[in-house]
Amino acid sequence: MPDRIVPHFQEELEQLKTRLLEMGGLAEERVRSAVRALVERDTPLVERVLAGDGPINQLHIEIDSRCFKLLALHQPMAVDLRAIVSAVKINTDLERVGDLAINIAEAVRRYTRHPPVKELIDIPRMAEIAQRMLRNALDSYVRRDVDLAHAVLNEDDTLDALKTQVFRELLTYMLQDPHTIEPSLDLILISRHLERIGDHATNVAEDVIFMVSARDVRHHAGEVGA
Amino acid sequence: MPDRIVPHFQEELEQLKTRLLEMGGLAEERVRSAVRALVERDTPLVERVLAGDGPINQLHIEIDSRCFKLLALHQPMAVDLRAIVSAVKINTDLERVGDLAINIAEAVRRYTRHPPVKELIDIPRMAEIAQRMLRNALDSYVRRDVDLAHAVLNEDDTLDALKTQVFRELLTYMLQDPHTIEPSLDLILISRHLERIGDHATNVAEDVIFMVSARDVRHHAGEVGA
Repeated sequence: MPDRIVPHFQEELEQLKTRLLEMGGLAEERVRSAVRALVERDTPLVERVLAGDGPINQLHIEIDSRCFKLLALHQPMAVDLRAIVSAVKINTDLERVGDLAINIAEAVRRYTRHPPVKELIDIPRMAEIAQRMLRNALDSYVRRDVDLAHAVLNEDDTLDALKTQVFRELLTYMLQDPHTIEPSLDLILISRHLERIGDHATNVAEDVIFMVSARDVRHHAGEVGA
Repeated sequence: MPDRIVPHFQEELEQLKTRLLEMGGLAEERVRSAVRALVERDTPLVERVLAGDGPINQLHIEIDSRCFKLLALHQPMAVDLRAIVSAVKINTDLERVGDLAINIAEAVRRYTRHPPVKELIDIPRMAEIAQRMLRNALDSYVRRDVDLAHAVLNEDDTLDALKTQVFRELLTYMLQDPHTIEPSLDLILISRHLERIGDHATNVAEDVIFMVSARDVRHHAGEVGA
């Protein structure tokens, strides 16, 4: 295809990475705001999260379009091909994280209509871990850093353990006092949304390992040539 | 690139479609089994679902590998390029549906340790709708049938409404009788897993519409050239 139309593949690829980092930053910021709105019972902030998915959705479409153009115009091979197909997948994961920020905000809106069930400690911790996983997963993509990607995979267990702990604790509250059932359900949902954000970070990390080493670490599979 | 190595692009693409349908069939079957195990309180079936994700994981890796080979060897353009990138995404969605079957089975395992909370009507209905959405979404991919893809998008609201209904009903049970809290929580989780299966079917349908018409229907976006 005509190289004069899009002359610099590597330059375009760098721009793609920059846009993905930007999208990751937006997604992370939305999760952070949703959880801050929960902790501080900040209703206007909840509404801002609920209304603010325009930029991330725009970027989602733009990144997809960039990936298709790179594939069509440059017909990349090997690691470059895997990098662009990975970008398509990572873009999808980040868009879902943005959706999960909305799901969290919806639960926060319901939750703040009741008195607080308890002091929130584990949920903000879960949010911090999930955000860090997401950030590291994206950094591992940009730097093609397999070690960092593996570190992301290792953090997923911590998140899972916290989710189970949150669940058990809230179950105790619900069994003791029926008034806490409704708000506790929303906290349980929020902890599951945060766990899913960790899952998306895990997906990104797995894509990075595949991209760099052409090794599929999903399902403990062996080598797969691309 | 050497056309003698993989001579028939269209033939390879047909094989890819066949494998995707096979994967969809496996995913659907696992969801069906998990929900049947719930309705019939069939503990051995639950364990079979929990242990049986080998074939779908194998297929997931194989399909991904086929897509990369098609992209690398044939460097397809326009609708063919979109068809293969869509296949990568659809493959991911189907693998997640397989994971959700496991999540459902885990909840069923816990649920069957308690006496039944109520007769199950809406959850099996949700499962039927989610399975049909998945089947139709895959058919729309194989036949490049945009109308069918739009029909899938329309069904998502029904699933959402049922999920809300299940939630409200179970909340009433929980508030009336604390003994139902634990098993009700698992039914709520199951209904949310089924809703997410519908979301994955929706993703597939959106990919099909984009693939066929190069029109991005996500986020109500306009035309996007590939």
